[in-house]
Amino acid sequence: MAETLTDTGLDLLFRNARTYTAWLDKPVSDGTLRDIYDLLRWGPTSANCSPLRIVYIKSVEAKERLRPHLSAGNVDKTMAAPATAILAQDMAFYDQFPRLFPHRDLRSSFLGKDDLIRDTAFRNSSLQGGYFILAARALGLDCGPMSGFNNKTLDAEFFPNRPFKSNFICNLGYGDKDKLHPRGPRLEFDEACNVL
Amino acid sequence: MAETLTDTGLDLLFRNARTYTAWLDKPVSDGTLRDIYDLLRWGPTSANCSPLRIVYIKSVEAKERLRPHLSAGNVDKTMAAPATAILAQDMAFYDQFPRLFPHRDLRSSFLGKDDLIRDTAFRNSSLQGGYFILAARALGLDCGPMSGFNNKTLDAEFFPNRPFKSNFICNLGYGDKDKLHPRGPRLEFDEACNVL
Repeated sequence: MAETLTDTGLDLLFRNARTYTAWLDKPVSDGTLRDIYDLLRWGPTSANCSPLRIVYIKSVEAKERLRPHLSAGNVDKTMAAPATAILAQDMAFYDQFPRLFPHRDLRSSFLGKDDLIRDTAFRNSSLQGGYFILAARALGLDCGPMSGFNNKTLDAEFFPNRPFKSNFICNLGYGDKDKLHPRGPRLEFDEACNVL
Repeated sequence: MAETLTDTGLDLLFRNARTYTAWLDKPVSDGTLRDIYDLLRWGPTSANCSPLRIVYIKSVEAKERLRPHLSAGNVDKTMAAPATAILAQDMAFYDQFPRLFPHRDLRSSFLGKDDLIRDTAFRNSSLQGGYFILAARALGLDCGPMSGFNNKTLDAEFFPNRPFKSNFICNLGYGDKDKLHPRGPRLEFDEACNVL
């Protein structure tokens, strides 16, 4: 008999979880930010390439560095969030292969192949972004993921000397349920899937 | 007090879950394939764009259509898996906005913007791929995700008349723990993250 998640767990991660834009006055501890990573890092990536890098923004000073790069509609909710994560991709992820995938020389299979590097970093850091959101929810946090910001200027501010490119950002905190709007619909199984 | 997942649940999804290449002789029901989607579809995407489309391959005939597109190292484990999912991105996802995001005319913000369409489809279908893997695990399945296949010829075979592009594929079944190799290492928190 395969083990499965309880209905309470499925509700917490998927069925009752919502994207929040308003937050309770309750801080997010550094320990919880660490715990998110300690869960998500076990999720699978291509050849264990693990390209996701995270900058957690908590201090007022760091929030002010983030502010000018946000789209207008994302400023207030982000400045109000107890923490904001920048989810970035390490474009030199292949330098970690000797340690993360020691069985074969994968580094030289990537070097100089810009399209392969770009697709692998983007696909796998986004996959890890999915693990990030569900790990945060598993730890009782609520998320507010966003793509609305200027990637280029944000990268110049936070990664001036590193080969990192931002993918998306995500507010973290304990969401204020009273400020939720009705949930958007989703495609039905037969619209999005088929079985052959 | 925020609700959190139990340790058993965290182990099931993250800490004890592994990528499998060998499978127990136990089928995966169509109902379970449907249940995966009914969970993952609630995960957040940009403006609810929900670009993921899934083809579940179960029959011998469909497996044979898949075979020629697989990288050599992925053939045996895929042909042996009870089911294989093709996770694809609908490059015309914006046509669903009037239904999925009726508040604003987002469709016209995307039309003709090829880079924005490509990035949005790839980021969000990969995010949904992360939800897919964790939803499958939550339902007691094991996963074997792979990027090693010929996207172009696979798309021509399975999506000749639809604007779908494959992202990655994922074997599904009940994994054979006796065939597992030792787990690869992961980067430590301080290597992948920092808090500002």
